[in-house]
Amino acid sequence: MQERLPNINNSFSEWYNEVIFKAELVDHSPVRGAMVVRPYGCALWERMVAVLDARIKATGHQNALFPLFIPESFLNKEAQHIEGFSPELAVVTHAGGNKLEEPLVVRPTSETIIHYMFAQWIKSWRDLPIKINQWANVVRWEMRPRPFLRTTEFYWQEGHTAHATRKEAYEEVELMLNEYISFCNDYLAIPVIAGQKTEQEKFPGAEITLTFEGIMPDGKALQMGTSHLLSQSFAHAFEMKFQTEEGRLAYPFLTSWGTTTRLVGALVMIHGDQNGIILPPRVAPIQVVIIPILKKNCDLERFKDYIKCIEIELNNQKIRFFVDWDTHKTPGFKFNHWELRGVPLRFEVGMRDLENDGVFVVTRMGTKTCAPSKDIGFFAENLLQEIQADLLKRAKKSLFEKVFVIESIDIDNSSFFEDKAIAYKTSWCLSKTCENLLKPLKASIRCIINTDTTPLYTHCFVPHCSEPTICNVIIAKSY
Amino acid sequence: MQERLPNINNSFSEWYNEVIFKAELVDHSPVRGAMVVRPYGCALWERMVAVLDARIKATGHQNALFPLFIPESFLNKEAQHIEGFSPELAVVTHAGGNKLEEPLVVRPTSETIIHYMFAQWIKSWRDLPIKINQWANVVRWEMRPRPFLRTTEFYWQEGHTAHATRKEAYEEVELMLNEYISFCNDYLAIPVIAGQKTEQEKFPGAEITLTFEGIMPDGKALQMGTSHLLSQSFAHAFEMKFQTEEGRLAYPFLTSWGTTTRLVGALVMIHGDQNGIILPPRVAPIQVVIIPILKKNCDLERFKDYIKCIEIELNNQKIRFFVDWDTHKTPGFKFNHWELRGVPLRFEVGMRDLENDGVFVVTRMGTKTCAPSKDIGFFAENLLQEIQADLLKRAKKSLFEKVFVIESIDIDNSSFFEDKAIAYKTSWCLSKTCENLLKPLKASIRCIINTDTTPLYTHCFVPHCSEPTICNVIIAKSY
Repeated sequence: MQERLPNINNSFSEWYNEVIFKAELVDHSPVRGAMVVRPYGCALWERMVAVLDARIKATGHQNALFPLFIPESFLNKEAQHIEGFSPELAVVTHAGGNKLEEPLVVRPTSETIIHYMFAQWIKSWRDLPIKINQWANVVRWEMRPRPFLRTTEFYWQEGHTAHATRKEAYEEVELMLNEYISFCNDYLAIPVIAGQKTEQEKFPGAEITLTFEGIMPDGKALQMGTSHLLSQSFAHAFEMKFQTEEGRLAYPFLTSWGTTTRLVGALVMIHGDQNGIILPPRVAPIQVVIIPILKKNCDLERFKDYIKCIEIELNNQKIRFFVDWDTHKTPGFKFNHWELRGVPLRFEVGMRDLENDGVFVVTRMGTKTCAPSKDIGFFAENLLQEIQADLLKRAKKSLFEKVFVIESIDIDNSSFFEDKAIAYKTSWCLSKTCENLLKPLKASIRCIINTDTTPLYTHCFVPHCSEPTICNVIIAKSY
Repeated sequence: MQERLPNINNSFSEWYNEVIFKAELVDHSPVRGAMVVRPYGCALWERMVAVLDARIKATGHQNALFPLFIPESFLNKEAQHIEGFSPELAVVTHAGGNKLEEPLVVRPTSETIIHYMFAQWIKSWRDLPIKINQWANVVRWEMRPRPFLRTTEFYWQEGHTAHATRKEAYEEVELMLNEYISFCNDYLAIPVIAGQKTEQEKFPGAEITLTFEGIMPDGKALQMGTSHLLSQSFAHAFEMKFQTEEGRLAYPFLTSWGTTTRLVGALVMIHGDQNGIILPPRVAPIQVVIIPILKKNCDLERFKDYIKCIEIELNNQKIRFFVDWDTHKTPGFKFNHWELRGVPLRFEVGMRDLENDGVFVVTRMGTKTCAPSKDIGFFAENLLQEIQADLLKRAKKSLFEKVFVIESIDIDNSSFFEDKAIAYKTSWCLSKTCENLLKPLKASIRCIINTDTTPLYTHCFVPHCSEPTICNVIIAKSY
């Protein structure tokens, strides 16, 4: 018997902490805060990487590889950047048996070293735009690590571009944000809230940070990725200048944007249920698991032939499947095993199915059908598409239910955000003072919603504030 | 005008050092010994990765991700392993603003941390074999770095497997060696010499190291990858035990195997010529470059339509191509530019070609043909296959010419290996004493050729040695 998972409704956090291990996405590592991504988790991440990589290339970016180590002095060149990152840095002080003259920082992000290279490459307006992407591991020392959500080492892509004009740079920032949003919608079946970070919450060294955030079942927001218009300060810091078409010297406008293995955590939280994780078919490493129900004295050869035909059908539709022939485990054990791992479709094939030329099809959400084995490939493909759409629909409904529109927040009630499992949409006066009043409530402004032209309320969410409101915001606790 | 490259025959080393930068495969980085892999080099590496990854998966391995940092104590667990790697380690001593209790080593290879995890995962014979692969960056502090060939940080895959029996483990070691050899032959068009490393040259902690080496135009051997049967000492060091089918406790047999971005360096050296690098079509990021030869007052729209048709043809054959429309550069400049970058085929399309429904086709080796634009996709595909085969043929011929069979080596002549640009095949008595006599000649035994059943000579390559010979070996200087 497999142990049950903690109750997903009452103990969501414990549920998450167990399900990721039991589904074998990840394992504890002997290095504090770093994770071991197991084959199943890695296959899931690779599916995400493949799609994202193709999108990044289709929008005109090229991959490159920059050093893991960054000279400490590089990070110091941009004042806000080093201030933001210095508490999280891992530093190499010794190498090759000697103390290094200058310590090397293990990259927490690569702006500084990439901008140093940009400065070598950009001489003329003809060299622009430069549109680079890097798939890499980065290190940020975390005090409260949680696998996928917050780890000292994580995996990500970081885009870095340089443009001749601010307008073009900002278009890039929006383009990539939109790429991320559609990736989340179309592949991860995760609807997100997108907007702009406040001055306090933006990336260290950026002029504008756009963000997309998911609202998790516990009401906490998860920042799933960001897209930054960097101020020209990085270009100044690295003396990155180019000759314009008119012959002047100018500083280029830079952007950076990234998303990480955190997306795996989001996927687990958004779709999972009491029986385990649920993977959207478009990113599931295994879309269909076939479980032969073998009885004693059954004709194994006939089973094999029958399942071979099903395999051919699935292959023709390019469906990723696995046949679980393991004879040491019962069918019931296997059902739980693959449910826990979120495989969208299960085919059960017993003696009766063989005789009826049928397959017993069970979706991860529990719907059961008998389907003829003829054209089972088409049948499965349609069903997978349906599941993909259903998951998005369900997640959209949940997002809608999780965001409450509210006029004011009781900032004197420190347990305002406790146990309600919701996020709030409200209006804000744009002042840092009001924003900071959320700190004792362990909540923050997750983003300013750009698309709203006028504030919902004339009064700021802070009851005693008398300033006029400027924008709408999402306020929540966060991961 | 583009500067010429150093003479490839007289100054091979200088030629290499310049061509990799001029072809924009790589750039100098501000971190000593680490390289920046530029988009063109990265695209080439990604082509290699895609093929190798598919082969690794097809042979039953799964990718996973393990931490970058390894606790120092882990490396100390296997005595030979730490002895071999300790001079090359980069060490993180501070993180998150504090001195670490135990320093963390940036992985030079991941045996120790992966074996630690294997010990958690392997309990019973049913858990075996475990067949894992990791794509990762690793760090080894190099005193004399050269891009791709020897860099402080490099990119690689490292396979790690555990088996119930030594026989099965050794089969794995041979299987992966053979996968590498066919990858080199079939994709990189590089014939290699494969064999076993001597006791002195094997991987620190291994029982047997198999290697495959290319002989470069300067006669030096380049170790392109290795496949190790690890002794059980790693299993002992990490207390990795499993219950056998018979209920006994046993230590599994481990393997590891890897190949690196060094393959890019091999490719450059093996195929390049005075005009630049030459890329085998199967790994070339761009297989065909199309250069419109636009004259003043030519009908640009007609050109665009004509080239559009060619593009459709190439797309139908899934050929990777690029149309160089840049109006700031002359056709002659572009010819040199793309030759330098090793693009296998160039299509020149001028006014006359338009009128004759033709394309002027030039291979990277200089063969010129006029081809009809109808079915140009098929034509190009055939020609690319021919080029791929020709490159392998040429490289095989060169390898044959570079390896001299010789009875003895004048170990008193310290310049024996100078300026001859050849490697030697000879016989050896298996003694370390004779092997060490090569050191003053700056040469080494690259491998013992396993496939040779009897020694070529009864006398060892060391003239004064009186021991009987046991095997044949390849002796050369090396990278």
